[in-house]
Amino acid sequence: MEMIKTRAAVAWGPGQPLSIEEVDLMPPRKGEVLVRIVATGVCHTDAFTLSGSDPEGKFPAILGHEGGGIVEALGEGVTSIAVGDHVIPLYTPECGECKFCKSGKTNLCQAIRATQGQGLMPDGTTRFLKNGKPIYHYMGTSTFSEYTVIPEISLAKINREAPLEKVCLLGCGVTTGLGAVAKTAKVKKGDTVAVFGLGGIGLAVIIGAAMAKAGRIIAIDINPGKFEIARQLGATDVVNPRDYSKPIQDVIIEMTGGGVDFSFECIGNVKVMRSALECCHKGWGESVIIGVAGAGEEICTRPFQLVTGRVWRGSAFGGVKGRTELPGYVQRYLDGEFELDTFITHTMGLDDINTAFELMHEGKSIRTVIHFNK
Amino acid sequence: MEMIKTRAAVAWGPGQPLSIEEVDLMPPRKGEVLVRIVATGVCHTDAFTLSGSDPEGKFPAILGHEGGGIVEALGEGVTSIAVGDHVIPLYTPECGECKFCKSGKTNLCQAIRATQGQGLMPDGTTRFLKNGKPIYHYMGTSTFSEYTVIPEISLAKINREAPLEKVCLLGCGVTTGLGAVAKTAKVKKGDTVAVFGLGGIGLAVIIGAAMAKAGRIIAIDINPGKFEIARQLGATDVVNPRDYSKPIQDVIIEMTGGGVDFSFECIGNVKVMRSALECCHKGWGESVIIGVAGAGEEICTRPFQLVTGRVWRGSAFGGVKGRTELPGYVQRYLDGEFELDTFITHTMGLDDINTAFELMHEGKSIRTVIHFNK
Repeated sequence: MEMIKTRAAVAWGPGQPLSIEEVDLMPPRKGEVLVRIVATGVCHTDAFTLSGSDPEGKFPAILGHEGGGIVEALGEGVTSIAVGDHVIPLYTPECGECKFCKSGKTNLCQAIRATQGQGLMPDGTTRFLKNGKPIYHYMGTSTFSEYTVIPEISLAKINREAPLEKVCLLGCGVTTGLGAVAKTAKVKKGDTVAVFGLGGIGLAVIIGAAMAKAGRIIAIDINPGKFEIARQLGATDVVNPRDYSKPIQDVIIEMTGGGVDFSFECIGNVKVMRSALECCHKGWGESVIIGVAGAGEEICTRPFQLVTGRVWRGSAFGGVKGRTELPGYVQRYLDGEFELDTFITHTMGLDDINTAFELMHEGKSIRTVIHFNK
Repeated sequence: MEMIKTRAAVAWGPGQPLSIEEVDLMPPRKGEVLVRIVATGVCHTDAFTLSGSDPEGKFPAILGHEGGGIVEALGEGVTSIAVGDHVIPLYTPECGECKFCKSGKTNLCQAIRATQGQGLMPDGTTRFLKNGKPIYHYMGTSTFSEYTVIPEISLAKINREAPLEKVCLLGCGVTTGLGAVAKTAKVKKGDTVAVFGLGGIGLAVIIGAAMAKAGRIIAIDINPGKFEIARQLGATDVVNPRDYSKPIQDVIIEMTGGGVDFSFECIGNVKVMRSALECCHKGWGESVIIGVAGAGEEICTRPFQLVTGRVWRGSAFGGVKGRTELPGYVQRYLDGEFELDTFITHTMGLDDINTAFELMHEGKSIRTVIHFNK
């Protein structure tokens, strides 16, 4: 196999707009797969890394981690994926063989963690080049390139009937929210839930809580423009912290007669993480951190909050094991258990990707999906 | 019933030695019980309150919360307890009727929380008087008095065959440790456990972990004098953080090839609480805070610790429901499932109670048990 050319949005440096250009892509090596990305969402994590705040962020890089694509070619030894398969790239791989995969307790496969975190393929090199110089991969996926090379263990094979320009959202935000409710928190019928932050993940948490038949779903955001959609998806109450002078945890505790059974932080703000914990019900309330905080930031609370029965935990990719469980989420979407259209407020071609970032920063979009054929 | 006289150790003010004197005790009112305390342990929490650091501490008060006694008289309406019953006073009551008791999720009965926290009986008054002036109760128990009045819902009726001068320790420290392992953490066979602080609670955690057949029990203290007993009770490794220049969490992670399944903080030091969390295994490790921190102190960590799968929780009285579950712990002691003698390094009469505090402060005792008939 020869090196190919691919269109990609390149992040040359922190804080710079992405540059749409043609780059070189080396063929997949052992255990790797060449994927043609059909569509990709643009997520806050991409913006976080692009901003320069991500301590693991490396440049130049091709960002993007919420994609859907079709397998074009296989590297040596790839057996679980075939050319023509429809796939969702996984930033949390599933090797099935490491201590973590075998534990039955976590989805955090560590097989290629070290190289992935450095923007490299498992063999320690990159497949993207520009003028002979390497461009780093991102989260093992780099879906802002029409063609990308991805490790076999980082691909979930899905039902070909699923529209890739929609189910690409299951590659990150939507699965993260649905999984945090069902797998991490295990919300049950009748539970009271608070959701902090009504971006894509927060809205997915609302959908998940509604699917779990939560008795009350309290949606919290400082942008009241998000409330209508939150209600449509199942929120029973909406709260704007700016409408109150007292701490938002006190407001929630009062509203609920003691606090919520489960809260979810979907922003990445360490102060909100504290509020989310402290609005939980004494004795049993559990708070799940989903948002990604800035480098070096810390969460704090009085230990009394925990000694009196609250639990503080976190969730990454919703606790979902990508290869074994994500295909089931795609199927549930096809079966009509939840919808994705509400999330997709904008679609555009790759050339307009910087506009997608602007819309996100301005709070005007939930998700923009980039269609590579537009 | 008339007012009676009782010998008691009175805490007249913060930082002062306890004063052994005769005080007046009013008869039990509705829902209350007069108990003759046979023996009581002296616990760090008593010392914490006596020091003045406890924000809820009120003076003058009669401290003590780890007692065993015999019922002498009943107030109006008491039906679940009879004169002559052997009882362990409960600082965490169990009314069976509040939202918390009925939740099935917590032992933190809130029925009399407000008055108990103020050093008062549920009707808002005290039963102890000196020269006609009220002396406050403590934790609803005040076991540093030969006779004390306790709410019916704060008494666990136990097997009369149990030696009160030993099973009194089940009124706090030992149950807290055993329960934190079995009920809060749910340690399973083969799990790796780290125990921070080898006082009475830490040693009880070791016993509990050994009973759960934990595969590895790592005992951590800066006082190497505690290591021999820790090993006797089941610790497989002992670690003195002062023997290392790097953070203790890094030492534990290295020792265990990734961290422990469960850790327990049994000191009340917020920095150690952080170490205890961060020495947990990525993906699934859980840390349980048992120790009581000083007023206003806060725990901190990077949220990444939780997002990557660690869980932070706390435990009060080991999650044990006093009236329904504590009698079973007493029975298990009688059946030989665990021993208590190791904890009781000293016994003495009430007149020597200040010596008990000194031994504790000097780290020379695990528990001193005060025998009222000595």
